[in-house]
Amino acid sequence: MTKIEISQGTCPFPKPVALVGALVNGKPNFMNIAWMTRIAFEPHVWGFSTREERHTVKGIKENGTFGVSFPGPDLVAEADYVGIVSGNNVDKSEVFEVFYGELGTAPMIRDCPLCVELTLHDILKVVERAFVLGVVQHVYTEERYLSDGVLDQKKVNQLIFTNPAHQYWTLGDEVGKAFSIGKKLKK
Amino acid sequence: MTKIEISQGTCPFPKPVALVGALVNGKPNFMNIAWMTRIAFEPHVWGFSTREERHTVKGIKENGTFGVSFPGPDLVAEADYVGIVSGNNVDKSEVFEVFYGELGTAPMIRDCPLCVELTLHDILKVVERAFVLGVVQHVYTEERYLSDGVLDQKKVNQLIFTNPAHQYWTLGDEVGKAFSIGKKLKK
Repeated sequence: MTKIEISQGTCPFPKPVALVGALVNGKPNFMNIAWMTRIAFEPHVWGFSTREERHTVKGIKENGTFGVSFPGPDLVAEADYVGIVSGNNVDKSEVFEVFYGELGTAPMIRDCPLCVELTLHDILKVVERAFVLGVVQHVYTEERYLSDGVLDQKKVNQLIFTNPAHQYWTLGDEVGKAFSIGKKLKK
Repeated sequence: MTKIEISQGTCPFPKPVALVGALVNGKPNFMNIAWMTRIAFEPHVWGFSTREERHTVKGIKENGTFGVSFPGPDLVAEADYVGIVSGNNVDKSEVFEVFYGELGTAPMIRDCPLCVELTLHDILKVVERAFVLGVVQHVYTEERYLSDGVLDQKKVNQLIFTNPAHQYWTLGDEVGKAFSIGKKLKK
């Protein structure tokens, strides 16, 4: 098939919707982040790209902690909403039922299947953006999202965001086991 | 529901399978990267976390360019295979049908629905890992993956990788439009 060229701005990453929460002036605030990835596992460091002036970033710097909650389809409107309006203008503290874990200052969302507490590691300036690095301290879920004691991705069913058409999706069907299905090609 | 704590190593990111390709000593080599994200859009910068000693990284430094190809389910075994074996030990140049774009030195995979050429921007050391930053120069697809001229995520159907159970998946059903479905919560 012939290849055609499309926009440089195409960002073909199906990504989990990650709701980053921080306490700003004592009130929980949440933002919707798509540009997040794991960076390292000794320690468990995650990073996400944002802008320094974001309301939630103020709270992350203030407390040195933040939460990341991964919503399912039942929270699609709320997740989208906190990505549309800024905490600089609107009080978002009542959008979700909030809970706190061991750190005490990292707001997480009770109705999300997966919630993670992180401590701030560093904020790097990368191409004029703030790349926020956090160290995972605690990961919370519920029994109903496990199968045989392991997180079951199909039960978790967290929202996935895609560009360029800006859509939220569920996960589809399993295609194969990683670190396994490719072994048959070994010579 | 009661929250329970699970491993700090839980990495709950459904992520696209990204096959990073570079020319190493004149031969194309590919590695399977899950920890990649967009970083900025002026210019369009992507970053991924890896280890400095990876064979593909040698090629990226050598040429200052690399390709990223996103495979669909038909390439699941090959995609997994290049993630299992190292180019330091095995010649992976024949696993895929390779093509080159404008840059000339960024190997991409013809049978992938989406292929991207990048120039190396920088390699940052983040928590003892190499965080490779590239600037998107050209994005290639095929007419059959578009709907009304826009990339159609359901047609692209790229593989998604999840931890901790190490599985590859397809994308599921659309739940809603981003930057839209949340508007109804505005007061």
